[in-house]
Amino acid sequence: MSTLTRLKEAQFNPHTLNKFATLMAAGNGYLGLRACHEEAYTEQTRGMYLAGFYHRSSSAESTELVNLPDVLHMRIELDGELFTLLSGTIVDYQRHLDFSCGELRRSLVWLAPNKKRYQIECQRFLSAAQHSLLCSRIAITPLDDDANVTISTGIDATQTNSGRQHLDETSVRVFEQRYLQGCYRTLDGSNEVVISSFCALPTNACSSFYAKNRRLTQHCSGKVAKGDAFIMVKTNWIASSLDADYHAESCSEQVLNKLVQCVERGYEQLLAESSREWDSWWQKSRVVVESEDPEDQHALDFALYHQFAMTPTHSERCSIAAKGLTGEGYKGHIFWDTEVFLLPFHMLTQPGIARQLLSYRWHNLPGAQAKAKKNGFQGALFPWESAWSGEEETPEFAAINIRTGLRQKVASALAEHHLVADIAWAVDAYYQVTRDDTFMRERGLTLLLETARFWISRAVEINGRLELHDVIGPDEYTEHIDNNAYTNYLAWHNVERAKHYLQQFAIHDADFVCQADDFLERIWLPVASPENLIAQDDSFLSKPTLDLTHYKAQQGTQAILLDYSRAEVNEMQILKQADVVMLTYMLPWLFSPAQLQANLDYYEPRTIHDSSLSKAIHGVIAARCGRLEQAYQFWQQACLIDLGDDPHSCDDGIHAAATGAIWLGAVQGFAGLTVEQGQLRLNPRLPVAWQSISLPFIWRGVHIHLTITHQHVTLSTSSDEPLEIWVADKCLSIVGGETVSLAGFFTPAHGSGTTKGAVQ
Amino acid sequence: MSTLTRLKEAQFNPHTLNKFATLMAAGNGYLGLRACHEEAYTEQTRGMYLAGFYHRSSSAESTELVNLPDVLHMRIELDGELFTLLSGTIVDYQRHLDFSCGELRRSLVWLAPNKKRYQIECQRFLSAAQHSLLCSRIAITPLDDDANVTISTGIDATQTNSGRQHLDETSVRVFEQRYLQGCYRTLDGSNEVVISSFCALPTNACSSFYAKNRRLTQHCSGKVAKGDAFIMVKTNWIASSLDADYHAESCSEQVLNKLVQCVERGYEQLLAESSREWDSWWQKSRVVVESEDPEDQHALDFALYHQFAMTPTHSERCSIAAKGLTGEGYKGHIFWDTEVFLLPFHMLTQPGIARQLLSYRWHNLPGAQAKAKKNGFQGALFPWESAWSGEEETPEFAAINIRTGLRQKVASALAEHHLVADIAWAVDAYYQVTRDDTFMRERGLTLLLETARFWISRAVEINGRLELHDVIGPDEYTEHIDNNAYTNYLAWHNVERAKHYLQQFAIHDADFVCQADDFLERIWLPVASPENLIAQDDSFLSKPTLDLTHYKAQQGTQAILLDYSRAEVNEMQILKQADVVMLTYMLPWLFSPAQLQANLDYYEPRTIHDSSLSKAIHGVIAARCGRLEQAYQFWQQACLIDLGDDPHSCDDGIHAAATGAIWLGAVQGFAGLTVEQGQLRLNPRLPVAWQSISLPFIWRGVHIHLTITHQHVTLSTSSDEPLEIWVADKCLSIVGGETVSLAGFFTPAHGSGTTKGAVQ
Repeated sequence: MSTLTRLKEAQFNPHTLNKFATLMAAGNGYLGLRACHEEAYTEQTRGMYLAGFYHRSSSAESTELVNLPDVLHMRIELDGELFTLLSGTIVDYQRHLDFSCGELRRSLVWLAPNKKRYQIECQRFLSAAQHSLLCSRIAITPLDDDANVTISTGIDATQTNSGRQHLDETSVRVFEQRYLQGCYRTLDGSNEVVISSFCALPTNACSSFYAKNRRLTQHCSGKVAKGDAFIMVKTNWIASSLDADYHAESCSEQVLNKLVQCVERGYEQLLAESSREWDSWWQKSRVVVESEDPEDQHALDFALYHQFAMTPTHSERCSIAAKGLTGEGYKGHIFWDTEVFLLPFHMLTQPGIARQLLSYRWHNLPGAQAKAKKNGFQGALFPWESAWSGEEETPEFAAINIRTGLRQKVASALAEHHLVADIAWAVDAYYQVTRDDTFMRERGLTLLLETARFWISRAVEINGRLELHDVIGPDEYTEHIDNNAYTNYLAWHNVERAKHYLQQFAIHDADFVCQADDFLERIWLPVASPENLIAQDDSFLSKPTLDLTHYKAQQGTQAILLDYSRAEVNEMQILKQADVVMLTYMLPWLFSPAQLQANLDYYEPRTIHDSSLSKAIHGVIAARCGRLEQAYQFWQQACLIDLGDDPHSCDDGIHAAATGAIWLGAVQGFAGLTVEQGQLRLNPRLPVAWQSISLPFIWRGVHIHLTITHQHVTLSTSSDEPLEIWVADKCLSIVGGETVSLAGFFTPAHGSGTTKGAVQ
Repeated sequence: MSTLTRLKEAQFNPHTLNKFATLMAAGNGYLGLRACHEEAYTEQTRGMYLAGFYHRSSSAESTELVNLPDVLHMRIELDGELFTLLSGTIVDYQRHLDFSCGELRRSLVWLAPNKKRYQIECQRFLSAAQHSLLCSRIAITPLDDDANVTISTGIDATQTNSGRQHLDETSVRVFEQRYLQGCYRTLDGSNEVVISSFCALPTNACSSFYAKNRRLTQHCSGKVAKGDAFIMVKTNWIASSLDADYHAESCSEQVLNKLVQCVERGYEQLLAESSREWDSWWQKSRVVVESEDPEDQHALDFALYHQFAMTPTHSERCSIAAKGLTGEGYKGHIFWDTEVFLLPFHMLTQPGIARQLLSYRWHNLPGAQAKAKKNGFQGALFPWESAWSGEEETPEFAAINIRTGLRQKVASALAEHHLVADIAWAVDAYYQVTRDDTFMRERGLTLLLETARFWISRAVEINGRLELHDVIGPDEYTEHIDNNAYTNYLAWHNVERAKHYLQQFAIHDADFVCQADDFLERIWLPVASPENLIAQDDSFLSKPTLDLTHYKAQQGTQAILLDYSRAEVNEMQILKQADVVMLTYMLPWLFSPAQLQANLDYYEPRTIHDSSLSKAIHGVIAARCGRLEQAYQFWQQACLIDLGDDPHSCDDGIHAAATGAIWLGAVQGFAGLTVEQGQLRLNPRLPVAWQSISLPFIWRGVHIHLTITHQHVTLSTSSDEPLEIWVADKCLSIVGGETVSLAGFFTPAHGSGTTKGAVQ
């Protein structure tokens, strides 16, 4: 495996503080920590978040992921000069995030206004070995003279979510004149978080402790000789009442003990323990490409680094927020992004985590059933935005229109119901990959049945056929339409799969089967026109078009809404993101190559790609159409959604689904590795710029390593069982343990219109 | 009248941001605004406060004065460089607060990191003519090249009180593409604040508007030629549901209309209107001294400027907080400071305001009666800390002891009862100065009776005499003692005055008179020893002493509590502040000059002066003892409580009582103007460094101007009625309208031990 890349920031730029705070965020699925500097900047949003730790600050607000008390901040004075990179001169600066172990490191030389130079080295990591552990280290070396160093740091609970406060400070303590501890409770009394910190200091340094105005502060000071380093290691342990092993009575002691144990081991050992976990994870996950463009590997490493950082593996009650744990965008809520854009990676690399993420939905079935009932439907209508309880968290009304003073009802929660079928799609996909009978019997089937019941109850009969009216498909610029193709097909798939597994697992439910049969027979599935075009919905194709060149040039900014109202946009053939194209991506076996191509060609020019969910999916479809150049272009553009030059594109957090889509594009698009109707399929279509792609995956318990070049496909597996795989249109059986090299099954398609290896 | 002085800040210093934000704060008694810079600094506490606008964010917190949404902040980019004085070079800088009109002005030249120079002029004022009006003006002149200027400003509701949020955003609007408006409601739903803003811009500038995350922002940008100024005037109108003319239904429109009317008049005219009010106020209030030390006049102007800024004149339901409206110290609560340290100034200059401040207590009688009842007493026990409702706001427990985890009960609310008698003392003093029969009949008498009833019920009988046990006197380093002399004497005075006015106003209440007579006859009033010493309490004189040199050198920091526990301090002869000395100040006619002197000499060496209420009172007593040098020293030290060099002494707000004490020291101490038992008395004792003092005052409706030199006393009055005044020990009758020059009534005492003009 080639060396993992690093994310670099070559200079300090006050305009990109929040971009890099997001890109370089630390995370272990339990905690997320924005890559803020130790010293504060007014323009930088500091943030630490615990998976599932939500709170609603008042009835006028939404539930949001709580910005926790800050342990990272350090107020640093060097010979009386307040350290900030805004003042003095930055002689040398670099910061990098090491994807291999999640350590963030900053090295700089600062010429202070007093004309003295100080070298400062900052390091930190969130442990992959112990979720609650956050370590940071700072070394300050005066280069020109002996120096007085003072650092004030502690646990700062003045943090808010943009001014909204969620926590009461219930206790602040200093134990044994060394260990800081703050205990906080959500204002509604439902959850607690306990934070303990310890600062290891040079022996000649002295400390004092203060608690005031929600800040527990250790004030450290000492002298350091020219050329020597003043080193502080700050070890922090963060626990919450959501933890399985949390005991309200003993939590303070428990957290303190954990901290003390870590302190004894020291920064380097703790980092080594964490790095071992990362190593093992990368072995299971990393996609390696040989490309003319080194940014391709970098984007893949970036995307997978963030998969690790954002994915809670400690609890079935948590899922992945739209911004992971990197920021407050979408208030930490969970959307269809998880099931459709993120789950495929987990199914194929760590299926246990995929099962856990699906279990999150299973635990939240009561909320979904209640929402269905409230809206006059049966079964389960999952919330468009979900947090801890599974209740609908989408605000009923959008932010006030500052010109009219009116608040528009948010349509997503009312009509963007495809999420229900997306969850069912993910349950089926998970089972196809894993054959996890236990999960399917105990949880999956319930999810499939309850979602199917929703669709059956939601359909309306029009002249004998069943239709789905007043929905929103994936394209959110087209609202309240009838028979959105994506929704209707996915709903059909949902009911079909429910019936299928009911029969497979020999569950007797004649009523359901009868209803399902009727639904499957009569649900309207929009058919392709003679030109292979599938209508996005009943009215879409009759709407006028608009030249979108101007808006496509500003993709991702929703600039069109500055020129047109939502209602006006709704009445034109304008897509925010893939819709029919998304459908052909989701259920590829239902559509012919000619249909894929025709719909890509029709809808893409009408798509602004204002959603981060759009580009990579177009890339996969373009690849399946054999248009490698276009596919590669889409994919590379998708890689820039967070990593690109826009200084503010990800200020409020990473585009989690987009990082998942980077993997999808490479693995499903270019490696052509898919699971379709129970078959493992491989249709490689490498971009010209790529010499190879290799990746590990797990297929029904068998660990496989796949390498693809333009000439060969190499599969190695450790299992004794024969493995069946369809390469292009041939089914091969690979015997366990051996490495098979396959050649001649396909011809590399250099940007040609079709490929011989395309799916039939 | 000599020109009013200005408060100057000669350089930008990141270490004194909060000190100057307090010292230079704007205020009109209705609103207070910290003197924060337009551009934000992480270390600067921004704040705007409305008198009486309190809220309690959770049951775990105290009621506090709400930090309102910020309208002052401007994010400024000059040719793409973010303007902050931490970066680039400050070529020129000065800021000054003009005491004559309350305008704050900053002029600077900034050499940006791009090596271009920009001249920036900022001005602002809170209107003295219209309480709700805040105007600011910024002029940016590029000196080296044409420039692109962008300013983002608006109404920012992410403000908190150290992380505690009090407001929900209920509406944000932009009217007519010009007028911003934000409406906010306290989380408990009880109060609302509405803020409207308008930015006047150069004609070629363009604007856009955004609302996100509690920020309503106007983004303005434009080009400006080298040498020309880009000028923005921002006019703001702030109103709340506490206003008498507030109507919930029409408040948005009402506030907008007010703003529009102001916008039409423009910055200069609005400033002129405000300045006229200031002029008239200074005419009624200013104390002018001719001193060798120009800082003396400066301190007096500073003190009176803040009297104006902190004193609510618009509502009887507001009083003056311990930090005025300049910061969040003491959470905006009201203490005895108002009645004892601030009211005398108002009685003698604007008695209507003194009446209003006393009415605040009258309105809050129900809370005081409830507190008395709850504690098993009769009458009214006013809360030690008071906010809007008059309920006790002192937290039951002090901040957690971070070492032990324990919270100590706060003793003040339980035992610091002298406040009750202090309020009665102020009612009597007000009546003596004004002969306001209406107030006394309708409100004052009730206050006197209810407070007297409290004392009668609070006394315990010990061997036939009445004692007051388990109290805290003004000296808060001596808690839970019996028969604190200050408390016993003031309680006696309280009951005596109640009985006196009952009889004067011919109110028949035989029961009360009978109880009062018994109380007055039997209450224990500690008598002076043969050495003229009055015991602070029953046990004080038997406690050991401690050399306080070390702690006196760190006055105001409570450094002794780092070395000794409160319990240990309690068992030594250590005073935080004047106690018996305070008693001799309050009821001077009860004590002989020898007694004043003996107690000053005994207690002062035992007093650390850790309270800001201490120094000036010692100064007055030293002056009354004729020790002018010592008195002047005390007074000058008292003037430095806020104005001194300590960079953090007033970070969380002005010491309101200390500013009142600056006036007390000059007027009662040096001019020797007092009211004692209904007599207007004058015993001038000018410091050697002073050539003269002159001041206006009102005595029973007659406007008088007094000038004192070392040789002469000059009184001018506009009334036709003869005015009786005691100068030294002679009673003079001055005929109305004429100017009388008096000489020879006293000999200037140059630091001698006694003065011939001392009170008998």
